[in-house]
Amino acid sequence: MPRLTLHRLSMAHPGDVSALATLIADGIVPAASIRAVIGKTEGNGGLNDFTRGFFSQSLMHLLARETGEAAEELAGRIPCVLSGGTEGVLSPHYIVFTEEEGAGEAGLAIGTAFGPPVAPGDVGNDAQIARVADAVRAAVADAGIADLADVALVQVKSPAGGPGLLLHSVAGGTMGAALALGDVPAEEARGPALLERTDLFSPRVSASAGVEVTRDEVVVLGTARGWAPGLRMAVRPMADALDLRAVQAAFRAAGLEADPDVPEAQRPRIRAILAKAEPDRSLSIRGQRHTMLGDTDIDAQRHLRGAVGAIIAAVAGDGRVFVSGGAAHQGPPGGGLVAVIAAEEA
Amino acid sequence: MPRLTLHRLSMAHPGDVSALATLIADGIVPAASIRAVIGKTEGNGGLNDFTRGFFSQSLMHLLARETGEAAEELAGRIPCVLSGGTEGVLSPHYIVFTEEEGAGEAGLAIGTAFGPPVAPGDVGNDAQIARVADAVRAAVADAGIADLADVALVQVKSPAGGPGLLLHSVAGGTMGAALALGDVPAEEARGPALLERTDLFSPRVSASAGVEVTRDEVVVLGTARGWAPGLRMAVRPMADALDLRAVQAAFRAAGLEADPDVPEAQRPRIRAILAKAEPDRSLSIRGQRHTMLGDTDIDAQRHLRGAVGAIIAAVAGDGRVFVSGGAAHQGPPGGGLVAVIAAEEA
Amino acid sequence: MPRLTLHRLSMAHPGDVSALATLIADGIVPAASIRAVIGKTEGNGGLNDFTRGFFSQSLMHLLARETGEAAEELAGRIPCVLSGGTEGVLSPHYIVFTEEEGAGEAGLAIGTAFGPPVAPGDVGNDAQIARVADAVRAAVADAGIADLADVALVQVKSPAGGPGLLLHSVAGGTMGAALALGDVPAEEARGPALLERTDLFSPRVSASAGVEVTRDEVVVLGTARGWAPGLRMAVRPMADALDLRAVQAAFRAAGLEADPDVPEAQRPRIRAILAKAEPDRSLSIRGQRHTMLGDTDIDAQRHLRGAVGAIIAAVAGDGRVFVSGGAAHQGPPGGGLVAVIAAEEA
Amino acid sequence: MPRLTLHRLSMAHPGDVSALATLIADGIVPAASIRAVIGKTEGNGGLNDFTRGFFSQSLMHLLARETGEAAEELAGRIPCVLSGGTEGVLSPHYIVFTEEEGAGEAGLAIGTAFGPPVAPGDVGNDAQIARVADAVRAAVADAGIADLADVALVQVKSPAGGPGLLLHSVAGGTMGAALALGDVPAEEARGPALLERTDLFSPRVSASAGVEVTRDEVVVLGTARGWAPGLRMAVRPMADALDLRAVQAAFRAAGLEADPDVPEAQRPRIRAILAKAEPDRSLSIRGQRHTMLGDTDIDAQRHLRGAVGAIIAAVAGDGRVFVSGGAAHQGPPGGGLVAVIAAEEA
Repeated sequence: MPRLTLHRLSMAHPGDVSALATLIADGIVPAASIRAVIGKTEGNGGLNDFTRGFFSQSLMHLLARETGEAAEELAGRIPCVLSGGTEGVLSPHYIVFTEEEGAGEAGLAIGTAFGPPVAPGDVGNDAQIARVADAVRAAVADAGIADLADVALVQVKSPAGGPGLLLHSVAGGTMGAALALGDVPAEEARGPALLERTDLFSPRVSASAGVEVTRDEVVVLGTARGWAPGLRMAVRPMADALDLRAVQAAFRAAGLEADPDVPEAQRPRIRAILAKAEPDRSLSIRGQRHTMLGDTDIDAQRHLRGAVGAIIAAVAGDGRVFVSGGAAHQGPPGGGLVAVIAAEEA
Repeated sequence: MPRLTLHRLSMAHPGDVSALATLIADGIVPAASIRAVIGKTEGNGGLNDFTRGFFSQSLMHLLARETGEAAEELAGRIPCVLSGGTEGVLSPHYIVFTEEEGAGEAGLAIGTAFGPPVAPGDVGNDAQIARVADAVRAAVADAGIADLADVALVQVKSPAGGPGLLLHSVAGGTMGAALALGDVPAEEARGPALLERTDLFSPRVSASAGVEVTRDEVVVLGTARGWAPGLRMAVRPMADALDLRAVQAAFRAAGLEADPDVPEAQRPRIRAILAKAEPDRSLSIRGQRHTMLGDTDIDAQRHLRGAVGAIIAAVAGDGRVFVSGGAAHQGPPGGGLVAVIAAEEA
Repeated sequence: MPRLTLHRLSMAHPGDVSALATLIADGIVPAASIRAVIGKTEGNGGLNDFTRGFFSQSLMHLLARETGEAAEELAGRIPCVLSGGTEGVLSPHYIVFTEEEGAGEAGLAIGTAFGPPVAPGDVGNDAQIARVADAVRAAVADAGIADLADVALVQVKSPAGGPGLLLHSVAGGTMGAALALGDVPAEEARGPALLERTDLFSPRVSASAGVEVTRDEVVVLGTARGWAPGLRMAVRPMADALDLRAVQAAFRAAGLEADPDVPEAQRPRIRAILAKAEPDRSLSIRGQRHTMLGDTDIDAQRHLRGAVGAIIAAVAGDGRVFVSGGAAHQGPPGGGLVAVIAAEEA
Repeated sequence: MPRLTLHRLSMAHPGDVSALATLIADGIVPAASIRAVIGKTEGNGGLNDFTRGFFSQSLMHLLARETGEAAEELAGRIPCVLSGGTEGVLSPHYIVFTEEEGAGEAGLAIGTAFGPPVAPGDVGNDAQIARVADAVRAAVADAGIADLADVALVQVKSPAGGPGLLLHSVAGGTMGAALALGDVPAEEARGPALLERTDLFSPRVSASAGVEVTRDEVVVLGTARGWAPGLRMAVRPMADALDLRAVQAAFRAAGLEADPDVPEAQRPRIRAILAKAEPDRSLSIRGQRHTMLGDTDIDAQRHLRGAVGAIIAAVAGDGRVFVSGGAAHQGPPGGGLVAVIAAEEA
């Protein structure tokens, strides 16, 4: 029987995988047990953010050395979903998901899948939606999740597609996952709806895109029989970028106090915080004008990550928050979602 | 007997003073009653932020037209303290402080003062400290505050001093005010201590510097006899950039609920939110590395304002937060302070 | 008989019009003689560049004080075309065009025109093209230019139109001017061609757009009978961003040596340098990849202005070059144009 | 007898070494013959530029695979000097220096050396100057250059040293090389002179610093007996950032025409263009104010590289120019230097 374990590790720079190397050397993490990595690197999060590629290369070289498998093969079976941009109080880190032997009735499960190689520019369309939906179904099956209602979160990373296509690719990956989960009906989940039909969204899909991947990569987390218990995961939609209540609710649903923040003694139980959010396209938040979308100097998503990430970090008491912009169709428009995974009390 | 009134107004761009023009035209704000303006414009907050000068010019031209007084004279008696940078969820706005007829035993008072013209580069030294201390004493007297313990907050704006001197000027203005308040002993409040002696600070001084002012400008807020009641002001130190508890405490001390945020019905009572904060020079916050101080693309203070401003805005439920970086000697090192002014319940 | 005179003036910051104030005070420039101002301010050149509005306001207040005319009226008859962004070696400056009494057969003439107020978003379409074409025809007539072949350059400034519309507005203004000049046939100069039909362009239109204008503003320069001689103007297309030969050719055609640069003794004869250029949309220049269009940290037009402006400044021996990005339909695709106005040898 | 050969290769992104891989696979470049790599990657060139580390890692992994030597050992004997930042028209590329069998009397020679590991922060002082001077002497001996007058250029890369130390490290590396070459007298080449004594400089040292190196790395190029002829190298000081004449002079001294640019037929003979330059600290160039040093949005060195790089690229007719900022003590103050290596006519 499998047991999912999460290790949240810091990095000194985007090429630094020494914390994981130490865990492997110390026998705490068997290299072969690693199923996925989700992380936050300190680039700009845009088209010319190469910190993600640098980290992926460093990670795969480490695992190649430890497992004897070729780096290219490892990159083809272990999703490495990275979001660039640690604006403000955010701290560069990565979460290593391992599958080892465990025992129990039911628990948090992981499943992964890779789509086929993507031709340049073949994103933001029906083809990407279908491709990602297939990959999500494969990942759900891989996790052994019997009921789609038991899926907590789907994390998707798609190829960037080229200049001007980044947000379309994110939207296409999202819609594909939403389709597979049944959160958006099949007749609506079509190319022309991307970035337009803001009423169509899933509150449990987190998607991004980057130049460093050439195939759609999917990680599914949810409850499945046969997996060991011990981890609690909660996801909550954020109504807007100031939705402090939703953030607290996610922590509480994951079994932690949040009044207003997680008490210091409980903070070591936090295993992962994953969030998505979006600059409100109406150009205002609760009636007050924001300036994120008209700034020529700082990218709108960098503004957004810095703001929403800080609110979540303030509740967590910890800057290691995976928060990614470009949240079209992921949670309510102008808002997003926040997920927390915590170890149950000993 | 005087009554202090605050109007918090939005701007569509840094040259937009139409909201104030309307209040004057409607007879709600007599132009002659304006004592000070504190605002947040949408520039970069740095040496080449000209949104502050643009707003000041627009404001003084409006008041010149309404009062018949020359714009230059108005600029010499009405402090206009602006902070550039509305990163993330922050919203451009300005707070107009007026003094009109009122009645009551004691209440929130305002006092202002201007220092003499400053020679280029004459900041960040003993001369600036002495100059600002004198101006603060004059402003305290102007407000009629009898006891220095009754000073809630001193807001200082000093000339930028030139390339490389901006943060020294902020520190010098802070130290001058801290000296006048007795928060730092006279023998310690010296030029060489600036930016070095992080143990020296006042939890009730908010200072900034900019190219658009040529003299030190001071606004003092505090309780004084003879001023009408009706406003409640509270200031709290922030221990670090994640100090959500301090933010809530300031709102509560100003008479508002904050559990976790100010209820919608109480939000109209918020008159002003003024904050200072600083990227932690240890390069980490609560043990986690931050990347604000090593980013070549985004200025550290822009990172900081976006993060701390978002936490405060999330509690206020409103992006109109005056938050300014460069908080050396203003609140604890790596932290800062947050002030809230609210109308008492009707 | 009229005489066109140009004064190229420096500014210490975007609110500084003191150099012009001095010329007026000294009787060198009669305030009433000013027909147009073209300048380069030190903002970011994007949607949130407020240095242009700040300069315009400062200029119109100065002229209002000197002429007794209202600032709003002056702004409605004196085009003030500003381009933000003095990247690299570029130097903030403005060129004042005056019309005074002169004598001669024929010489460089100026004509100006303003279009009607523009509804928000009404740019980048057939309506803007027609509007600007009408304004250009009016400005040509105003200058007394008899033959369209004698038009040297049309400078257009249009309203920005809102987020995402800036480049469309620039393209629409350009196409309107190209239509009026006969450089693009009427049946091709249509909304759908904007930013798409890169084969359609005029080598003598320079257009920009900004939030600080609410009407299309046009300045036409060319040769007309009845204007005094003394100035020589030349315009040359740039084939790409490295077209050093075109830059030298423009200086030479304006009567200056350029081997490789303008000799120091001739530099005072330079009256204005106006240029437009564009990041090559093929993502490469002469077969080598450039990175301007995929940079999340620096706007592509800022990259471009810094590069092309430096090449022109190196030939001029002087950083006061008006160079503006967003050159769609202005000169060859991936290139642009450069214009030089110089005083004839004494 | 050795022959120095240079290959100038493009990269599609900072992890792309495929062009070199192809040359190795095709037998054109024996992997074991590589002595040094100098390149330009598309990061921001600052403290948080990780494109350099990414490229180095990719290069060393490629060479490890091809030679069987460990990547760490290769990195300890092959200097890989990278400058981040391809602003404007600059194109990402790298120059591979190989040493193979040749024949001839005398020719362009290469020598390399590495200093000892550097303790954090141990830069910008006497220790670094001495360390780098030793490494330069070792590299000169390695090249077999008999007379210091025959050294054309010394390229130094030093550890960044930490926040605030970057420019001090560049200055220290420069001064060490200038000391070894005899271009600055020993009694002047001291820590306190760094960044202060602008009169002390060498016109043939190019230095940089970065977080991706932990030891001083040195490459020396110059004429030595026993090396094969065929390459011509010229270095010229630039008096300021607009020194177009110096740029042309360097190309001409390397045997190419430059009137005003290198003719297309001669461009394939260009093997490398290496330049250093610096924003003028007087805040003006030839009497006109520049804004590079007061811009909060774009780093001054990015401004500078975009401008000077464009002027050189316009003469070369090619964007593959290695231009690096932070040129203190490298060429005249406010200026810099430009070096060209070209193949002799067949």
